Amino acid sequence: MKLSQRALEIQASPIRKLMPHAVAAKKRGIKIYHLNIGQPDIPTPQPMLDAYHSFSDKVLAYGPSQGLDIYRQGLVEYYAKCGIQLAENEIIVTTAGSEAITFAMMVVCGVGDEILVPEPFYTNYNGFATMAGITLKPVTTFAETGFQLPSDAEIEARVTPRTKAIMVCNPGNPTGTVYSREDIFRIAAIAKKHGLYVISDEVYREFLYEGLSHTSIMHVPDFEENAILVDSVSKRYSACGARIGCIASKNKPLMEAALKFAQARLCPPTVDQLAANACVPLADEFFVPLIAEYQARRDLVYDALMQIPGVVCVKPQGAFYILVKLPVADCEDFVTWLLNEFSIDGETVMGAPAEGFYATPGLGRNEMRLAYVLNKDDLAKAMHIFAKGFEAYKKLSS
Amino acid sequence: MKLSQRALEIQASPIRKLMPHAVAAKKRGIKIYHLNIGQPDIPTPQPMLDAYHSFSDKVLAYGPSQGLDIYRQGLVEYYAKCGIQLAENEIIVTTAGSEAITFAMMVVCGVGDEILVPEPFYTNYNGFATMAGITLKPVTTFAETGFQLPSDAEIEARVTPRTKAIMVCNPGNPTGTVYSREDIFRIAAIAKKHGLYVISDEVYREFLYEGLSHTSIMHVPDFEENAILVDSVSKRYSACGARIGCIASKNKPLMEAALKFAQARLCPPTVDQLAANACVPLADEFFVPLIAEYQARRDLVYDALMQIPGVVCVKPQGAFYILVKLPVADCEDFVTWLLNEFSIDGETVMGAPAEGFYATPGLGRNEMRLAYVLNKDDLAKAMHIFAKGFEAYKKLSS
Repeated sequence: MKLSQRALEIQASPIRKLMPHAVAAKKRGIKIYHLNIGQPDIPTPQPMLDAYHSFSDKVLAYGPSQGLDIYRQGLVEYYAKCGIQLAENEIIVTTAGSEAITFAMMVVCGVGDEILVPEPFYTNYNGFATMAGITLKPVTTFAETGFQLPSDAEIEARVTPRTKAIMVCNPGNPTGTVYSREDIFRIAAIAKKHGLYVISDEVYREFLYEGLSHTSIMHVPDFEENAILVDSVSKRYSACGARIGCIASKNKPLMEAALKFAQARLCPPTVDQLAANACVPLADEFFVPLIAEYQARRDLVYDALMQIPGVVCVKPQGAFYILVKLPVADCEDFVTWLLNEFSIDGETVMGAPAEGFYATPGLGRNEMRLAYVLNKDDLAKAMHIFAKGFEAYKKLSS
Repeated sequence: MKLSQRALEIQASPIRKLMPHAVAAKKRGIKIYHLNIGQPDIPTPQPMLDAYHSFSDKVLAYGPSQGLDIYRQGLVEYYAKCGIQLAENEIIVTTAGSEAITFAMMVVCGVGDEILVPEPFYTNYNGFATMAGITLKPVTTFAETGFQLPSDAEIEARVTPRTKAIMVCNPGNPTGTVYSREDIFRIAAIAKKHGLYVISDEVYREFLYEGLSHTSIMHVPDFEENAILVDSVSKRYSACGARIGCIASKNKPLMEAALKFAQARLCPPTVDQLAANACVPLADEFFVPLIAEYQARRDLVYDALMQIPGVVCVKPQGAFYILVKLPVADCEDFVTWLLNEFSIDGETVMGAPAEGFYATPGLGRNEMRLAYVLNKDDLAKAMHIFAKGFEAYKKLSS
């Protein structure tokens, strides 16, 4: 029995594909510090957990396809606090950011159409594009320049008649790169010039360091028809298991079409929406210490990396990832080796090899993404193991 | 700004598209008996609600892409009780039946491939097919013969080189039709002969009346490579808002590919899986009275319909729908009229016009789906209004 072309083509998750080695290591009694996956250790806010505990409906019923009214009202309030003016009918609640991305891609692209995306990019964009028969056209960025955007000319050179959108992730996964106000306005101008949408993945909106402020695609004036926001509560509230996100746009026909996609799958999960809604009132008292904690973690990981000779990495200013270029031939081999062959006092560390974050074949092979989602003590141990492991690995291969 | 072809093509939900008329009626103070949507009124089992209340993790984390181990073990146990032998790694938990259908379609069909499906069929198959660039090829069935399958020859006449699967829903939404063991084995034989998969939507498995027993596609011997089961807890446990389903197959490469699709969207909702798992022990003491209640409701609705002259309907034996052919030109017009123009003592009734359940243009226009998901008192009132409304509508149009 044959499988479909897309089933053969779809990429295995580079974040999860080395998990069998991790499982085997654990079976041998090895403790692994997981820097490979963006699963925060921060406790989920109590009001969110309380919402699960106090769910009192007798029937766990379908909600509206566009999301529960009460939560869409909550999102209007949340976005207003971010300087983003949205009306309820400009928001559709989705099953996590994943579904928001799928809807955005499918609404703007037919089969064979193209989306420009700065690479390295969030690897699962590949999966969604494969499912939808869309081609992602990478605009390569580099560790040496902190994965900042190239010139207009370099971006525009990738536009073809089949290009329908530019997709950005700001702050960036896997890079931690933050686009400035100028960058976002520049992308919008390019999109406008070529009649493209911008799909802006802003799930790390709050994760900006050193007092930087976030520029949303929704902040660009006179860009209502082009701007599509995709979002998720997963990282913001340490609630990855809730699977609640949204898609938002002021483009009415686009949202009407997105609603039809949403109707096909009936609705996002009901109780999880109520739980997400309980987080809407969270403000500075929640985010300020959270961001301070992540900034300290970033500094710790970055400083540790800087001790390793030959490492290339510009200090990232957002999200909770560092994409680092290492003086090795193949980071997948290095990560696998760390899991299979190396440990200190029964402990080792796992990162995500970066090749899967690139669309251009061969790129990223000597890069690795580290997620600083552990407490500082654990991170310090993890980075010690990483540095020692690197030293040993280099000796082996030299 | 242009939208994609699939955004222009995707069908609006025929179940939900008349909702604005319902909203307007409610604003005028009219009470509506909703027979248009399969939202059961049966209380969600207490163990399921308790699972939400007792969630005690500190961090609401990502689960595995294939679903929580504990819940997959629960599903193995549940299916064993249904006479379906599945191992844990033959099951992937999905975000409702919707996602299971999407994964199944995408794994077996490339863009432009075809799936045979008896029509009328669950309307949202259309949406998933449009998203994936798949063509649904209808095999028409008829109210006069209780929407039973046509001959092998008629089914096989629709097979082309692009046909990859036959999709069935058993018991059927929107028809309530139950396929016998002979039917299921016959479909399997046709599939085997032409090298096709069978995607079997069995979300109404327990909803069989008069002591009928259910034949699953997984019961067919020597069909492991071809059989794909899609399922959901929504109807079974009156838990439509939980959004938990699964896809299951003994075809290893197929499940490996499905897992890659699953990895792209990371995981299904965590707490909802725990809630679904709490339902696994539910057995006869839960289902026997439930099924008796639905059978009584079916009888009530069917008997009321039989009082209406010119109605065509064979008593359905499963699910909780009746698809009825009415002596009117256009059921959408009739439903709209019931909402906008008709009421008895401030109450009216809403059904789902059936045209959207057909892929063949023009079919189903004089048919309507009624979901018997209300208690018997409400159903009796609803059917009284339906009959009186029908009488008045016929007078108007004659």
